[in-house]
Amino acid sequence: MTIADRWLLPDGMDEVLPPLAARMEELRRALLDHYHRWGYDQVMPPPVEFLDSLLTGTGTDLDLQTFKLTDQLTGRMMGVSADVTPQVARMDAHSLKRQGPVRLCYCTNVLRAKADQYQGGRSPVQVGVELFGHAGQQADLEILHLALSSLMVAGAQEVHLALGQIGIYRSLVQAADLDPDQERAIFDALELKSPSELALRVAEGVQDPALAEMFLALVELHGGSDVLTKAREAFAEAPSAVKAALDQLEALSAGVATAHPEVELYYDLAELRGYQYHTGMMFAAYVPGYGQALAKGGRYDDTGRAFGRARPATGFSMDLKLLASLSIQEPPCDGVWAPCDEAPELAETVTALRNAGERVVQALPGQHTGPKEHRCNRHLIHRGGQWRVVPLE
Amino acid sequence: MTIADRWLLPDGMDEVLPPLAARMEELRRALLDHYHRWGYDQVMPPPVEFLDSLLTGTGTDLDLQTFKLTDQLTGRMMGVSADVTPQVARMDAHSLKRQGPVRLCYCTNVLRAKADQYQGGRSPVQVGVELFGHAGQQADLEILHLALSSLMVAGAQEVHLALGQIGIYRSLVQAADLDPDQERAIFDALELKSPSELALRVAEGVQDPALAEMFLALVELHGGSDVLTKAREAFAEAPSAVKAALDQLEALSAGVATAHPEVELYYDLAELRGYQYHTGMMFAAYVPGYGQALAKGGRYDDTGRAFGRARPATGFSMDLKLLASLSIQEPPCDGVWAPCDEAPELAETVTALRNAGERVVQALPGQHTGPKEHRCNRHLIHRGGQWRVVPLE
Repeated sequence: MTIADRWLLPDGMDEVLPPLAARMEELRRALLDHYHRWGYDQVMPPPVEFLDSLLTGTGTDLDLQTFKLTDQLTGRMMGVSADVTPQVARMDAHSLKRQGPVRLCYCTNVLRAKADQYQGGRSPVQVGVELFGHAGQQADLEILHLALSSLMVAGAQEVHLALGQIGIYRSLVQAADLDPDQERAIFDALELKSPSELALRVAEGVQDPALAEMFLALVELHGGSDVLTKAREAFAEAPSAVKAALDQLEALSAGVATAHPEVELYYDLAELRGYQYHTGMMFAAYVPGYGQALAKGGRYDDTGRAFGRARPATGFSMDLKLLASLSIQEPPCDGVWAPCDEAPELAETVTALRNAGERVVQALPGQHTGPKEHRCNRHLIHRGGQWRVVPLE
Repeated sequence: MTIADRWLLPDGMDEVLPPLAARMEELRRALLDHYHRWGYDQVMPPPVEFLDSLLTGTGTDLDLQTFKLTDQLTGRMMGVSADVTPQVARMDAHSLKRQGPVRLCYCTNVLRAKADQYQGGRSPVQVGVELFGHAGQQADLEILHLALSSLMVAGAQEVHLALGQIGIYRSLVQAADLDPDQERAIFDALELKSPSELALRVAEGVQDPALAEMFLALVELHGGSDVLTKAREAFAEAPSAVKAALDQLEALSAGVATAHPEVELYYDLAELRGYQYHTGMMFAAYVPGYGQALAKGGRYDDTGRAFGRARPATGFSMDLKLLASLSIQEPPCDGVWAPCDEAPELAETVTALRNAGERVVQALPGQHTGPKEHRCNRHLIHRGGQWRVVPLE
């Protein structure tokens, strides 16, 4: 094996070197502090769990994304966390058992067996928040605010927000009383965004002509604010749950428009991402130049049911690595260079400078590199019986 | 499967809940800031690598500790990082390729297939520093200073430092010209700290009676500062490399005694932990009540050789989770409670308070829990046409 081979890293499993690592640490702190000021408490989910627990109620997508390990202590299968959201939901349901709204945040490594769509890696640092115990749109709006303000904290500009509401499709499916095969066929046609395929599948499966019209309308309902007007017309005779979902979508976009007038809003009422999982509003935020969403979230009520407590839940998450790449800068040349000298007075001066928050790099015996290579713009020299910090020429 | 079963976590794979999670985040920041002020740049090693790369030059102990995964993209075996130190050494050797001393630090999750000796978990958060490119004792002393000051940052008291020097044993083995079986037998006897077993093995393997005496002396050379005096006598006729190792040990203990007079120093010249890996001084720092070391480190030159650049290296690491458990406190009751009210003036006041660094928790419609449950000691009330922060009765 050659040296180059030995160093080859698996696709999407990256090392992070100084300028990006420093930016990620800075952003991690800024985001967790931001969430703290909104009342969110930090938690750290287990990086590995038994597979039965990890995948209960999360659907097949997450199963395919999860690396499997054998536990040598018990012989049972374990999985490495690929998405901490369901883990946090279970911490709320089972470990914390607090009453009323519970706000939790996290920032942690996850691993994915396959890369996400588009350019996502397999070792993202997932950062996000979850709000449990409140089913109302105020909770969803708080989550939307936090997602958009998080992107501002990260320096994102020209943010586009795509809003959806899986409740509309769910309610139509329920009203049409479809069998699982018919539902699957319609779902696939909508995912393909193919009007002709959809027309075929709806004709086969949906008896009620009014409901059939509504299914067909879904595939066209994406775009700017006129989507809401068109949806009002298309769903004028729809079941009340569909109208309630539309009302909520309208209230959320009004709230976003007030708090974040700079954000461009899009709607996609046929967005079915995370159908096995989401139960209400869903969103994804984009910036130009990035093929994948920088923040994704939505409502996912009752995930905790399998763990003893069904709770309303809404939240979002981001990849810190991707987010930090929005604005990396070379670290500043800011530090004090100390010579290699064992004088106790020098040691005292260095300690005092560090205690005052200065970065001090001390030379080691025989060292050939100098202050510039170590990003120092000042140095310590002995003058007039004292060690003084002096700018480098 | 019952609800309780579903929640069972694998042994040593823990979730971290609010009081400990907050303390870990606080300590993470304090430590990384501390290392920054000493000139250490943060890096983040890949959480998973191809097994060939991950285990090159690290010995069988780490192999047994490493979870193995199949890469679905290539069919090759990968390993989850169980110790980031060799990874950081390779980042220095291969990715950074900087000249002169290079100082790096990290704080990241690792996974272990089996729990460490004593009470260690299988999902530690490894935090530490590595100093590359300098073979002198000044570099080792810097690492010792950083380890001890890290424990002070974490609030540790009554720290005991155990110092060793694997160079002494290595030089004796070299001088005795042992075959691998004989060396293994002596190594095992020393690990057992069994004088009778050692006497047997030395009699079998070591021809030179003076060298045999020195091997036998090793097993007794542990304890307080008189160990150095006894070692001087025992090794009076030893090869010069043994004396150089002793000189270095003496210089390091003098340095530690000056900078950290509060630390109790122990010596163990027969300590062979990490023999496949360490090349010079080794240390472990303990506090009363913890069976395992809180900080472990030492010199491990030339790990980067397999990756194209042999470099001197010294460093240490700690488990942030264990370290944070030294001083967990309930989080303070400090925050402002905002009522559920959509008045724009209230929203502005809340934003202004958060921007000023305050923690503000806003009630959601129909919420039954109050400010106390959400750790708020003040609330916002509308008085005299303004929203004001008022202490709770």
